[in-house]
Amino acid sequence: MKLVVHLLSCTPEPDRTVAAAARLCYSDASAEDLHSEIGQKKVSGFLKHLRKSGHMSPFEHASFTFGIDGISRVCSHQLVRHRLASYSQQSQRYVAMTEADVVVPPSIQADPELRGIYEGIVASSHAAYRDFIEKGIPREDARYLLPHGWQTRLVVTMNARELHHFFRLRLCRRAQWEIRELARRMLALVRRHAPLLFVVAGPDCLLEGECREAHSCGSPYSSIEEILADETHF
Amino acid sequence: MKLVVHLLSCTPEPDRTVAAAARLCYSDASAEDLHSEIGQKKVSGFLKHLRKSGHMSPFEHASFTFGIDGISRVCSHQLVRHRLASYSQQSQRYVAMTEADVVVPPSIQADPELRGIYEGIVASSHAAYRDFIEKGIPREDARYLLPHGWQTRLVVTMNARELHHFFRLRLCRRAQWEIRELARRMLALVRRHAPLLFVVAGPDCLLEGECREAHSCGSPYSSIEEILADETHF
Amino acid sequence: MKLVVHLLSCTPEPDRTVAAAARLCYSDASAEDLHSEIGQKKVSGFLKHLRKSGHMSPFEHASFTFGIDGISRVCSHQLVRHRLASYSQQSQRYVAMTEADVVVPPSIQADPELRGIYEGIVASSHAAYRDFIEKGIPREDARYLLPHGWQTRLVVTMNARELHHFFRLRLCRRAQWEIRELARRMLALVRRHAPLLFVVAGPDCLLEGECREAHSCGSPYSSIEEILADETHF
Amino acid sequence: MKLVVHLLSCTPEPDRTVAAAARLCYSDASAEDLHSEIGQKKVSGFLKHLRKSGHMSPFEHASFTFGIDGISRVCSHQLVRHRLASYSQQSQRYVAMTEADVVVPPSIQADPELRGIYEGIVASSHAAYRDFIEKGIPREDARYLLPHGWQTRLVVTMNARELHHFFRLRLCRRAQWEIRELARRMLALVRRHAPLLFVVAGPDCLLEGECREAHSCGSPYSSIEEILADETHF
Repeated sequence: MKLVVHLLSCTPEPDRTVAAAARLCYSDASAEDLHSEIGQKKVSGFLKHLRKSGHMSPFEHASFTFGIDGISRVCSHQLVRHRLASYSQQSQRYVAMTEADVVVPPSIQADPELRGIYEGIVASSHAAYRDFIEKGIPREDARYLLPHGWQTRLVVTMNARELHHFFRLRLCRRAQWEIRELARRMLALVRRHAPLLFVVAGPDCLLEGECREAHSCGSPYSSIEEILADETHF
Repeated sequence: MKLVVHLLSCTPEPDRTVAAAARLCYSDASAEDLHSEIGQKKVSGFLKHLRKSGHMSPFEHASFTFGIDGISRVCSHQLVRHRLASYSQQSQRYVAMTEADVVVPPSIQADPELRGIYEGIVASSHAAYRDFIEKGIPREDARYLLPHGWQTRLVVTMNARELHHFFRLRLCRRAQWEIRELARRMLALVRRHAPLLFVVAGPDCLLEGECREAHSCGSPYSSIEEILADETHF
Repeated sequence: MKLVVHLLSCTPEPDRTVAAAARLCYSDASAEDLHSEIGQKKVSGFLKHLRKSGHMSPFEHASFTFGIDGISRVCSHQLVRHRLASYSQQSQRYVAMTEADVVVPPSIQADPELRGIYEGIVASSHAAYRDFIEKGIPREDARYLLPHGWQTRLVVTMNARELHHFFRLRLCRRAQWEIRELARRMLALVRRHAPLLFVVAGPDCLLEGECREAHSCGSPYSSIEEILADETHF
Repeated sequence: MKLVVHLLSCTPEPDRTVAAAARLCYSDASAEDLHSEIGQKKVSGFLKHLRKSGHMSPFEHASFTFGIDGISRVCSHQLVRHRLASYSQQSQRYVAMTEADVVVPPSIQADPELRGIYEGIVASSHAAYRDFIEKGIPREDARYLLPHGWQTRLVVTMNARELHHFFRLRLCRRAQWEIRELARRMLALVRRHAPLLFVVAGPDCLLEGECREAHSCGSPYSSIEEILADETHF
């Protein structure tokens, strides 16, 4: 199973919704007036101003729901550490792992010998898993055998503020390749529906012009296009 | 200004979105399959099951954004105590309070003499407020004069899980009438878009059949229709 | 490595701190008065009242920090789903997994043959892990080989309100044995420092007298002592 | 009533607790080893590193509980917008406002005429409040009369990470004087118990060397001592 990321759902007109909320704070507009037209140019100006000054709270009014297939439990464990988000994850307690679905790290994929060893471990773990279940071991226990690379599925909802935070951390070249690729795909999806909310997004090197990491990667991003093109195949 | 509550935006197909996320947890459905048809009856069954067993986390994937005009700062102070939500509130620091807009509690409204006194205080505070501003006092300081009943505006986003929690606390007859009426209007609005997510909602008397309050009101609700009809005029 | 749970730190006088905060809400006591003596009996009464009426927010003022050694990555993945808590987890990206430390589920432990198979998988995965690292595969990738049962370490901070929620879900007999045992140990620890905050805690069967699960275990707990005695060896 | 801020309680040894949690992430130290001595110099180094690289999550393990007397409802409404914190606030629904306790903004305090007008409004509102209550209006409704400057009391708990965020926003010269003074006092208190966690804290001008506000105050802070000395009398 290859990584598949869908945008299942999002707030309609996310750019305009956030701009309308921001406008309410600083003007005498009523909630009714918020329905009236704000020109696209004004929306763009509002959002740029919020982002520049760091007043990101109106970004919370736009919400995005993703369906994610085919990330490893390594990656999902990193993902769910983001606490300002909602998760529904496929249960290994209730769902039988009938297929040997694993993520193969590119570094292992690149070396036929190591890849063979990896596939051997996967196959023998999965065989033991099925054997254990046949012998009456509950699924929730048999899974202790399965390798960390085993695949999982989630539905994830984040708002645009948390997404910006997520992209800042996880699009950094020092994040692991798997969650970086997940973040890259999520960014590409949200930009289609909210081009102004996500006109720019990414790590400190791109947003602030400098890296805060103790051990910088030494290769700062210079544009969001560069990030979007930086695909990791797995 | 009368209380006006709009549903500015919400997750499209909220009932189905939540059911799809729940289905992912307990089945081998992929994110792609989630796009396929789930019959309305199945959606209804899933949601009922989640609610009954208290597994409310999939309800977080449906999000609702409200525009609220005309609640008092008393009510907004109670409202923003709900931390699992997003708020954009009209700023009294930046926006001039040009009109004397207050909420009049029904108990005061009902007594012409007290209502006169209240209106007098409102008028004299507002006159002083304008006077102070003319004399160079910043808006943010002049507002210390204004009565608690002064009106405010907000954009609020909550997900369906937090809304259920909000309705549980704030539709109780022991909640103050103003936030109860706000909650009642919000409930009526979300039921139009998510009839299955909110087929039932409200305080413990309705949901659990018993009250936990130390000082019960003694008048348990017996149906959601009764709650929806229980309007407070102000 | 056996499961070890320490209480690294907690709010001093947690019972009294929560009671003092609650007292502030409903009386004219100043923050200074809060320092004065509240008798132990009064503290007990306040806390009982809060718990009974479900007004749990003052419980948030007491905070508990645990050091946890020797849970599996299965268990830590469940644990970190609790979002109202703080986590610092040993990194598999930066720390080399030099020893083959795994949790053995009791169901596997009980069957020598299966236990042998499990140990074989663990040994061969770990050997491959070390081999991969020697051949230049980064630790963060080599770990995809390691079984889910692999051990991890965390520092976890939760406040007393979230702990009650955690105990409600995770001390249920339908929770997995590993997180149940973790919760049982945590409960035993906090009761030593906060006997009144945790005079009772646990699943719905104990607290509400009835189960909400669709598939009840059929064996409701009748006392907290029964929960505390219900050890799972692993 | 003057503003009084107490530190009611905090995590014992907050500096060391955070450093120990951070050490766990990047080393093979067990939870038991965490109890052993880490030299003060090493603690300082760890914390500096975390702050510089923006890896603030271990700061969440240190928690601080404040008792606050004598802030206005204007200020408390701003305060409770910080959602990653715990609040217990004196209820105006249950507690009678027997004394006319208000915060007087320094700009009004400085002008005897305006101060007189303010005091007049306060006195007449309070007289009406008492009158309304005598005539059977519930406290929760009578308070709609009271001016925004009316005083309140809270118990607030924040962890060190959220405190840093709070100080960043609220010690800025563009924050309102009242919440700035509250933040200044809180900072002075936590520095006594956690000198290393809060060796530096404050707005962007101090921490990042530049202001992000659209309308900068033009007077950047150059040291934390300057912030701590910048008292607002009220």
